[in-house]
Amino acid sequence: MSESMQPPFGPAPPPLAGPELPSFRYPLGAQPTKQFDGGTAKEATVVQFPVSDKLAGVYMTLEPGAVRELHWHANAAEWAYMIDGRARVTTIDPENQAEVVDFWAGDVWYFPRGHGHSIQGLDGGCTFILVFDNGYFSEFGTFSITDWLGHVPPEVLAKNFGLPASDFADFPKKEVYIARGPVPPPLAEDPAPASLNAPPLSHRYRLLAQAPEPFAGGEMRIASEVEFPISTTMTGALLTIAPGSMRELHWHPNAAEWQYYLKGSARMTVFGSGGRARTDEFAVGDVGYVPQGYGHYIENTGKDDLEVIVVLNNGTYESVSITAWMAGTPDLLLATNFGVKESIFENMPGDAVIMPD
Amino acid sequence: MSESMQPPFGPAPPPLAGPELPSFRYPLGAQPTKQFDGGTAKEATVVQFPVSDKLAGVYMTLEPGAVRELHWHANAAEWAYMIDGRARVTTIDPENQAEVVDFWAGDVWYFPRGHGHSIQGLDGGCTFILVFDNGYFSEFGTFSITDWLGHVPPEVLAKNFGLPASDFADFPKKEVYIARGPVPPPLAEDPAPASLNAPPLSHRYRLLAQAPEPFAGGEMRIASEVEFPISTTMTGALLTIAPGSMRELHWHPNAAEWQYYLKGSARMTVFGSGGRARTDEFAVGDVGYVPQGYGHYIENTGKDDLEVIVVLNNGTYESVSITAWMAGTPDLLLATNFGVKESIFENMPGDAVIMPD
Amino acid sequence: MSESMQPPFGPAPPPLAGPELPSFRYPLGAQPTKQFDGGTAKEATVVQFPVSDKLAGVYMTLEPGAVRELHWHANAAEWAYMIDGRARVTTIDPENQAEVVDFWAGDVWYFPRGHGHSIQGLDGGCTFILVFDNGYFSEFGTFSITDWLGHVPPEVLAKNFGLPASDFADFPKKEVYIARGPVPPPLAEDPAPASLNAPPLSHRYRLLAQAPEPFAGGEMRIASEVEFPISTTMTGALLTIAPGSMRELHWHPNAAEWQYYLKGSARMTVFGSGGRARTDEFAVGDVGYVPQGYGHYIENTGKDDLEVIVVLNNGTYESVSITAWMAGTPDLLLATNFGVKESIFENMPGDAVIMPD
Repeated sequence: MSESMQPPFGPAPPPLAGPELPSFRYPLGAQPTKQFDGGTAKEATVVQFPVSDKLAGVYMTLEPGAVRELHWHANAAEWAYMIDGRARVTTIDPENQAEVVDFWAGDVWYFPRGHGHSIQGLDGGCTFILVFDNGYFSEFGTFSITDWLGHVPPEVLAKNFGLPASDFADFPKKEVYIARGPVPPPLAEDPAPASLNAPPLSHRYRLLAQAPEPFAGGEMRIASEVEFPISTTMTGALLTIAPGSMRELHWHPNAAEWQYYLKGSARMTVFGSGGRARTDEFAVGDVGYVPQGYGHYIENTGKDDLEVIVVLNNGTYESVSITAWMAGTPDLLLATNFGVKESIFENMPGDAVIMPD
Repeated sequence: MSESMQPPFGPAPPPLAGPELPSFRYPLGAQPTKQFDGGTAKEATVVQFPVSDKLAGVYMTLEPGAVRELHWHANAAEWAYMIDGRARVTTIDPENQAEVVDFWAGDVWYFPRGHGHSIQGLDGGCTFILVFDNGYFSEFGTFSITDWLGHVPPEVLAKNFGLPASDFADFPKKEVYIARGPVPPPLAEDPAPASLNAPPLSHRYRLLAQAPEPFAGGEMRIASEVEFPISTTMTGALLTIAPGSMRELHWHPNAAEWQYYLKGSARMTVFGSGGRARTDEFAVGDVGYVPQGYGHYIENTGKDDLEVIVVLNNGTYESVSITAWMAGTPDLLLATNFGVKESIFENMPGDAVIMPD
Repeated sequence: MSESMQPPFGPAPPPLAGPELPSFRYPLGAQPTKQFDGGTAKEATVVQFPVSDKLAGVYMTLEPGAVRELHWHANAAEWAYMIDGRARVTTIDPENQAEVVDFWAGDVWYFPRGHGHSIQGLDGGCTFILVFDNGYFSEFGTFSITDWLGHVPPEVLAKNFGLPASDFADFPKKEVYIARGPVPPPLAEDPAPASLNAPPLSHRYRLLAQAPEPFAGGEMRIASEVEFPISTTMTGALLTIAPGSMRELHWHPNAAEWQYYLKGSARMTVFGSGGRARTDEFAVGDVGYVPQGYGHYIENTGKDDLEVIVVLNNGTYESVSITAWMAGTPDLLLATNFGVKESIFENMPGDAVIMPD
């Protein structure tokens, strides 16, 4: 396990400091959608979902050829899962290395804080979920290239680019956000000599293409810093749970968890110490949240597979399960702890599991 | 020197922002004790001792066989010194590795933030001091296994463990905290093949058994990340000062300090810049605190050895002493700085010391 | 790129959370100077310049022989640029290693948080600018040796140093801050055997002596952790821009920027997202500030070279320029993004530049 940075210690955030836990569900899918010419967006930040101070998210669609314009986030890294369709993504990093790469459904991207990027829908358009490692990312945190250049006098742009000021006469005067344009041609399979200045670590990881780790009653695909080295501040996972099964009781010592419910229906119970537990029901399009170190489990309450995107604000994945904990503890001690017969623990599982029904 | 993470920079915390320094003493031993069936506890957190925002502590006793139940802390790592008696400790980490190990008086443990653990008194019971690297650790930060399982429906427990729901009928419905039970048998000296899944780094360090570093008038045993590798966020030490001697003027550039006075009587003066100094008298059972970077010295004011447990919120130990500083500075410069004759500095010690009387 | 620590994420600080950006200029040179016997000082902290919460600075002069006394900062590391003259600097670190070294105009120092140091004017005196990686550094953050020892009873000093209490009878009773004394003799070119206990990493870096990195219209000298290994939390640079030229549009993903305008006159525009841009005019002696991740560019508006000291609160230097970003982005995508003809981008520069006029 690589050592990872801890969030600052201190008092419990206000939404978690009372005798009752707040809801850990935000019905993102049920919110009104913001319409743009070329796409749509809706977001879940601390403004809408106050408990989620460490992570936020956006559900976005782009029509074919539409570009979510060149921009960067001054206050958060960005992780994404491509739900449907295809997109072309460009990035720039502080070494001036640029990557242009296409994403299919099931692919994941990660942009470190402050790195420039754009997203363009390809044939058929695309739908994706974005996750940021700052619940406040949306508050003066998105810096768009048209917003900036539109506020720079043409004579300064001329000097900056070494071009006539007249070249910039038709540049937009305010933020474009999403722009319509033609679907670009396929990327070259064999790039021309000297045509690339690509970064050593790709921003793309093919999460769905990963062979999943099977559990009893489910399976999980995971992209931590181990599998996806550029993703130093976030870990993402795709969790599939069979009907009647559950993701067992566990907690993450080093991270908060942000969830997007992709398919099926679920019930999640979060345990917050001090006799506090909270159960919420989740449907497709809902967002869930679990504060760092809080116990939780997720049940598939439907008749079909449950699929959940899970994103943690730490590049190192850590999880402790109740079953593994009890398996590693002497039965006599468990009997004393719970005040029951030692024989009850003899048949408990010997390691972490996701149990079938 | 290994590089260590710094706490966030910013303004001085309110208790340190006025013209007068607050007291750096909290008489933990003099507080009423919370009685449990099988043990006792009393704590010092920012609620009782507002200046101690970076570290908190608990004094605890357990009777023979009594278990401080399986639990974890979502918001702090835990360090402890076994003052008296013997205890058996269990732990679980995110790799599902479990350690079961006995502690004697003078041993130290460290549990990383979020790792599960339990403590059980052995023959004769035990007394220990716990220290947490978050002054707010006690505020919805302790997650107990009975508190959690007591809030999970039996049918979910059945599914989670693959056992009949009836097995959980007699489980406690609320937090046990301390449970009574038999003293467990000795640990196997020669573990059976395949019986262990132990972590590579032990949670136990035998601090008192360490050969101390002698100083004039005292000695110190220290457990930083160097001596005790799992202890990445805290350093602990046992400081012994002879009658009439003192721990010299020094400061810690990278950590706040939390103290528990084990034996003897003492006077500590803390220097806080801006003409602010504060002297407090300490007796057995008192807690002391020194903010990061604040100057301080400790005098033994009694007739017997003074023993103090010192815990810093950084796994890298750093200390600068006034004597070493002045020894490394040209005498002419010191004479100018203090406006006195250069000859005064000729007989000063050449390095850091703890001076005898 | 080495991985560097990120400041904590969270909401935008209040001065940046409104619909209009505040001024990013503070006229430090125009403020009244604090006079001492032997020197002068004036400071820019969050108290005077509220937007600058991550970095602060002090402009200081010392007469020949005058000592800015032995002190340390509990809440910030210190970076400095020697503007004029010569000074002798002493330091102590937690390994009790001491360095005594002279600084000429154009030299830079870095003292890690909490390390002791002093500064003495040599022949001709000296003028320098100090920068701290905490906008609140001045608030109970400077710990002076006379302030401390003046609050320690003589009998304790006697015990601490193993000297008669009478030796301390004439020590100052309160903070000296700046002391007058003789200019010390030159340092030994060939230190006597056993006379040094120097740290492995020097606190001095000769920035002006560095061969600059030339750009079209300017040049830059930089001291990050790469060039100046002890400087782990800050990067400093000396930026020179020719008349009519500019430092191109860029941003720093991982750091806030604090500026001191050394020579010439300038205009800086800062872009803060949400349609917010702010332009300020700068003269010699002014301080500038750019929040982390905010876009900015600096124009030389005078007839002479512009010289600016630039200090970032991260030991790893990161910068992304608009020209490099656009150079790495397909022209067709840029045409879509800006809604203009693709041909406009054909003549754009192929990499980051500072453009001449």
